Amino acid sequence: MTAVNLNIKKAYDSIESLSQATAWPGHVTPLSVPGNDNSEFWPNGFHAAGISAAIRYDKRDIMLLLSERPSAAAAVFTTNRCCAAPVLLSKRHLMQNGGYMRAVICNSGNANAATGPAGEADAAAMAAETAGLFGIDPEQVLVASTGVIGQPLPMRKILDAMQQLPKALASNSCFDAAEAIMTTDTFPKYLAIDVRLSGGTARISGIAKGSGMICPNMATMLAFLATDASVSPDLLQRLLSSANSCSFNAITVDGDTSTNDMVSILASGIGPVVEEGSEDEALFAEALEVIMTFLAKLIVVDGEGATKLVGIKVEGALSEADARLAASTIANSPLVKTALHGEDANWGRIIAAAGRSGAVFSQEEIEIRFDDLPILAKGFNAVFSEEDAALILKKPAYTITVSLGNGPGAATVWTCDLSKEYIEINGSYRS
Amino acid sequence: MTAVNLNIKKAYDSIESLSQATAWPGHVTPLSVPGNDNSEFWPNGFHAAGISAAIRYDKRDIMLLLSERPSAAAAVFTTNRCCAAPVLLSKRHLMQNGGYMRAVICNSGNANAATGPAGEADAAAMAAETAGLFGIDPEQVLVASTGVIGQPLPMRKILDAMQQLPKALASNSCFDAAEAIMTTDTFPKYLAIDVRLSGGTARISGIAKGSGMICPNMATMLAFLATDASVSPDLLQRLLSSANSCSFNAITVDGDTSTNDMVSILASGIGPVVEEGSEDEALFAEALEVIMTFLAKLIVVDGEGATKLVGIKVEGALSEADARLAASTIANSPLVKTALHGEDANWGRIIAAAGRSGAVFSQEEIEIRFDDLPILAKGFNAVFSEEDAALILKKPAYTITVSLGNGPGAATVWTCDLSKEYIEINGSYRS
Repeated sequence: MTAVNLNIKKAYDSIESLSQATAWPGHVTPLSVPGNDNSEFWPNGFHAAGISAAIRYDKRDIMLLLSERPSAAAAVFTTNRCCAAPVLLSKRHLMQNGGYMRAVICNSGNANAATGPAGEADAAAMAAETAGLFGIDPEQVLVASTGVIGQPLPMRKILDAMQQLPKALASNSCFDAAEAIMTTDTFPKYLAIDVRLSGGTARISGIAKGSGMICPNMATMLAFLATDASVSPDLLQRLLSSANSCSFNAITVDGDTSTNDMVSILASGIGPVVEEGSEDEALFAEALEVIMTFLAKLIVVDGEGATKLVGIKVEGALSEADARLAASTIANSPLVKTALHGEDANWGRIIAAAGRSGAVFSQEEIEIRFDDLPILAKGFNAVFSEEDAALILKKPAYTITVSLGNGPGAATVWTCDLSKEYIEINGSYRS
Repeated sequence: MTAVNLNIKKAYDSIESLSQATAWPGHVTPLSVPGNDNSEFWPNGFHAAGISAAIRYDKRDIMLLLSERPSAAAAVFTTNRCCAAPVLLSKRHLMQNGGYMRAVICNSGNANAATGPAGEADAAAMAAETAGLFGIDPEQVLVASTGVIGQPLPMRKILDAMQQLPKALASNSCFDAAEAIMTTDTFPKYLAIDVRLSGGTARISGIAKGSGMICPNMATMLAFLATDASVSPDLLQRLLSSANSCSFNAITVDGDTSTNDMVSILASGIGPVVEEGSEDEALFAEALEVIMTFLAKLIVVDGEGATKLVGIKVEGALSEADARLAASTIANSPLVKTALHGEDANWGRIIAAAGRSGAVFSQEEIEIRFDDLPILAKGFNAVFSEEDAALILKKPAYTITVSLGNGPGAATVWTCDLSKEYIEINGSYRS
């Protein structure tokens, strides 16, 4: 196995070892195996490619996902006021086409953000070139970029390299496509699942990138999904937004959000139908959440300098919103994250973060568990031995559960530890 | 000069070198000189001491500030829902005595937070012991603690050591008192100023501690001020709260806020009178803001692992609140803070942080300056040479100004860089 494949294997193992990880639901079968570059990865009707334009990195850096026919499309975008040119363009294209698209084109190494009108023209040129190469309309193309902010795209390099795309589509490799959207990621992130529905089996496949700047509300992360299920654009958008709130919007690496975030899904409609309000809708929704959550966890595991994947579950909150507030504040606290790195059972930092989060509770009611090990009982009663706590804190993945004793609200946010490597990477990399 | 005194000297020099530092107003004269342990430091009517109870550190760890007579008192406390026992007690004492107090007692090394009813009894015992030693009422004593959370105070050690306090008051050293409240601080923080008012000269003196967990809304920081001016408790509270919002609440080290924050001021009334609504009120208010801002900057300079003091000034915002929102988000961004550490003119991270802050503006209107050097002109027009920017970024202190071009709102937040040393300190220290 190569080093990259070892990284992938380790990441998948971490996620599987999360004691509170959801088992695969009965109607869902994971398809891709770590390190296995599966050319059968994409659903019926889709082809993908990753090629190199040498924009910034010595690796593939342009990804194309192409649908044989107009596909129902849905997407969620960054809420950052300084959003990038491709985000503006993709939003417009999605509106113009009533939710039907043919392709996603994405480059890494340059975000095409803070680039003004010239940047908007460059994003449009990427769409136009894709359209020209494959005989589709430019408005049927979603465009995404990730990388350094405030520098013009090297358009000559990009347009030249794009000429390789038609040929590269033949390999149809999930590995190539996932590699092409990476920036400081250390391994490509992809997963495909088969979903048994009443009308047959649908496939949902996705690739993602993250690393650094990851925080709820869409951080510098991209994910592109495709399915052969037949879903209306409206329903698809609702299902994507809902799954997004407890997957990509429930992870954090460093609390920074970016100018370029985007998660999209295309549904070719070649496969089984998902009717609104049917049981199939519930099955499809659950499967979509499962694949998106898995990809989201892969992003956390590969957070810059991260060595641990930690679920922060808050329960007993007044509401789900309150639970999410407390979980996010704990998950983003540098003092908590350095303690996770130091493998220190520092529950004081956890309650201090919960206390400043804005969530409503009485401090005497707080209880804390690491996996199934009680750490803090009500009345600030520390009930653990350092040895038992250390056994959990040394694991690559575990869950910290904080009970507020104040209601039915619950939410989980996934975070990683904060290490010196984070500083090393970000003190030098201009992103 | 000792190493500690060198640290103090360097810190004072950093603050003085801030190009946009306010010069001392005409009616204010700074009194204490770095490294000069001035026994004339405290205003008329006050005595202070720092002694060692070996709670956690090998240094002084109990501080007493005693007023010869009932002094008008005011304080601001942490907003953290998990606030510590001494915070609850001090709030109650302040209410019970109509704003007149005689003493502040503070220990470092243990926060007496998350300690339940036993912790409340311990805080009360510290007040009672102080009262017994000096023949005052326990309710006239403010109590503060800082250090590790969730462990009982070593009360025998503390009460034994407190017997030294009457004798230790004789030295009346600002250095001893400031040292006694330190935790991971690398140098004691103190400043005294003389303030010319119409009725004569008043003195305001203060000590502070910070380091780590520093964020707007009162982080793990303590500051104890004293003045001989004659100010009513109500006016004193208003002036303290107002000065606090643009000093201690306008700094950030890591975005974490604590369970124990407290800033208090006692006014003995031996000196000149400050009448509500008079010109003296304005002069006194300005002086109070000056000394509190200076102490706040000392805290940032001494942030865990910090090597730079950086003012983040946002102007042209829709409102002051919007400006503060944007400035805080930029000042707290790990990506911005690592770029400051790496001395990288990474304006992309600054606009990305401003963009996600919630402040309202159009991205094309943003302008950025480092000190007086234009970095970004409107329309994302980068107008600097890397060499010129590096000259500023290598300085120990400078100001980044972000103009949003959207209104009259302005605010400044002081921050520091994020270094590997922060991780080292917080990956091992249990606080």
